[in-house]
Amino acid sequence: MMKRFALFVSLLAIAGSLSAQELTNFSFGRQAPVISPEIQADSVTFRLKADYATIVKLNASWMGAMGGTVDMKRGENNVWSVKLPLPSPEIYTYSFMVDGVSVNDPQNIQVQRDGQRFLNMLIVPGKRTENYGEANKRGTVRYMWYDSALLGSNRRMVVYTPYGYETSPKEKYPVLYLLHGGGGDEEAWTSMGRAAQILDNLIEKGLAKPMIVVMPNGNPGQQAAATLNLPTKQVQMQDAYVKSLVTEIIPFIEKNFRAIPKKESRAIAGLSMGGGHTLSASGLYPGTFGYICPLSIGSQPSEELNNRLQGIKKAGYNLYWFGVGNTDFLYQSALSLDKALTDNGLEHTFFVTDGGHTWANWRNYLDTFSRLLFK
Amino acid sequence: MMKRFALFVSLLAIAGSLSAQELTNFSFGRQAPVISPEIQADSVTFRLKADYATIVKLNASWMGAMGGTVDMKRGENNVWSVKLPLPSPEIYTYSFMVDGVSVNDPQNIQVQRDGQRFLNMLIVPGKRTENYGEANKRGTVRYMWYDSALLGSNRRMVVYTPYGYETSPKEKYPVLYLLHGGGGDEEAWTSMGRAAQILDNLIEKGLAKPMIVVMPNGNPGQQAAATLNLPTKQVQMQDAYVKSLVTEIIPFIEKNFRAIPKKESRAIAGLSMGGGHTLSASGLYPGTFGYICPLSIGSQPSEELNNRLQGIKKAGYNLYWFGVGNTDFLYQSALSLDKALTDNGLEHTFFVTDGGHTWANWRNYLDTFSRLLFK
Repeated sequence: MMKRFALFVSLLAIAGSLSAQELTNFSFGRQAPVISPEIQADSVTFRLKADYATIVKLNASWMGAMGGTVDMKRGENNVWSVKLPLPSPEIYTYSFMVDGVSVNDPQNIQVQRDGQRFLNMLIVPGKRTENYGEANKRGTVRYMWYDSALLGSNRRMVVYTPYGYETSPKEKYPVLYLLHGGGGDEEAWTSMGRAAQILDNLIEKGLAKPMIVVMPNGNPGQQAAATLNLPTKQVQMQDAYVKSLVTEIIPFIEKNFRAIPKKESRAIAGLSMGGGHTLSASGLYPGTFGYICPLSIGSQPSEELNNRLQGIKKAGYNLYWFGVGNTDFLYQSALSLDKALTDNGLEHTFFVTDGGHTWANWRNYLDTFSRLLFK
Repeated sequence: MMKRFALFVSLLAIAGSLSAQELTNFSFGRQAPVISPEIQADSVTFRLKADYATIVKLNASWMGAMGGTVDMKRGENNVWSVKLPLPSPEIYTYSFMVDGVSVNDPQNIQVQRDGQRFLNMLIVPGKRTENYGEANKRGTVRYMWYDSALLGSNRRMVVYTPYGYETSPKEKYPVLYLLHGGGGDEEAWTSMGRAAQILDNLIEKGLAKPMIVVMPNGNPGQQAAATLNLPTKQVQMQDAYVKSLVTEIIPFIEKNFRAIPKKESRAIAGLSMGGGHTLSASGLYPGTFGYICPLSIGSQPSEELNNRLQGIKKAGYNLYWFGVGNTDFLYQSALSLDKALTDNGLEHTFFVTDGGHTWANWRNYLDTFSRLLFK
């Protein structure tokens, strides 16, 4: 009896799963399944079934500074393919061009979002990427909303709490405010930046302190990522977002989470535009953040900058860590910020890597500086 | 001084936003922007720029029971388009076929995920969809992990807490366990089902009680949605997932959230396979759930079923609400479950609608039965 009932429920379950997706798969049933991407020892093969296409190409983010395009060749059953040397361990993105139109790989469900675009990921395993995959002990990632009186809207942020946050109700945690760049939004650091995976792995290995990570939306006129299609507005106020960050978001976090509300337990880091926000927030509100980590940003010499750096020096800080790639278009201005820090007598780490204004660098910087926080 | 510094930071912000996305937009700079989809009074126009394509079609979920395909026509600047009558208010999905290959609309960032596929949404406004858009007061959506000893893995669930949960630390809430169908995962109800928006809107309007909604992964061998690319395993145990739900997930939720731990404050609902899980969980663990809402499922008559229904009747319940579409392929078996409920003397609501085994129905059912819970 039990068995018959269970079998019937199972049959229903199968019938219930006949979504459009399964029907598509059925139509391929008689041919070998298309596998893409397929990583072999030192190569990677991309494949796309395209029955009626004339030209199919691969757009690959790792080929040249702006990405490159390579032709694919039609094979059996109209499966187009190209086999390339495996690039060095990193997370790359790619898409196909089918008769001039960009197409995602239907065999690859791993996707990241870059602004308006959803891009397939190629994750090449290795030392460089060992903290970018799923850890065994994972934190919680929340989508939350806060009311900003300053910006006049209800706004979304992504908040990571480390493994154990829920089960250790007496423990309090330090907080990293982690800011995205231009064209990004509150999901940039979790989608492209692998922030949750990096923190999960480092904390699990004992390499980073358990911490809360707050990733707000840094576009002051925007309530949330454009995927939600919410109205935007013009915000004219000087430093509007940075003011909301320090006077609204920090109090919101310290009220709603078990956060340690003091300078030594607050870090701020951001890339590009978010690096600019990091400079502004630390300069306008000295004594708020003990750890200051601008990434891929710089600053021209100015009296204003000197005044702000003197303010930070006077208020005291635990770490000033500053990363940039040596082919970044902002590299010269980063050298100028490094000099201003030195000239103003601020002890700091200037972390120069290969590469440019890329997520490959920003993931690496997060993987590097987050080990130094709150210690 | 202040101004010069701010201007410089703004310039950096613009420079920093020159991602691939912006470069693409620049290349269109001299032509009129492509707008798609464009809803007019009683029509909707889809457009795709495809310079080298031979045949471009639109796949539209609302055309026929399985979706339909319609030709698009090449126009100025190789922008292909088709204008269709606006379908009735609902959330639909669509894609383009470019020379036989499925392509998403690059102008439409609103995307839902159906298993392995990312599909563009067309949201037609109206009475039917008024609770599917963003409310003004929004709850928090979390991605959390629990350890299942029964299933031998760390597993992900999505947990919604209503607006005010964080700011009312003394309030306790009832919990709805909301289960997906075959081919789905823990994101199905928030992605395709608009569960967060529906609850936000109903709670804001005072039409539903503030409640926690727990959306676990119902595939016992899977740790999380396939987007995370985690290893899967075979699980042979009878009713494995339902056992984990009642003996592991419920205690986890009642420990980690301010949930009211009693029958009258627990609801279970699920669609298709999740409707099967709803029948199993309520039957195997009578007295656990006060509110039982299987959707788009049925059951053949059996002694086992009668025994389970008698168990539920004996333990007592607050509401048995049961929805199905009259063209669902499970409609006959739903009639049979309705009869079994009646024959066994269980007071219940049998909510029959037009339509079949579709998210249009499941969104509508959630929008309907969640108003009746915990009252």
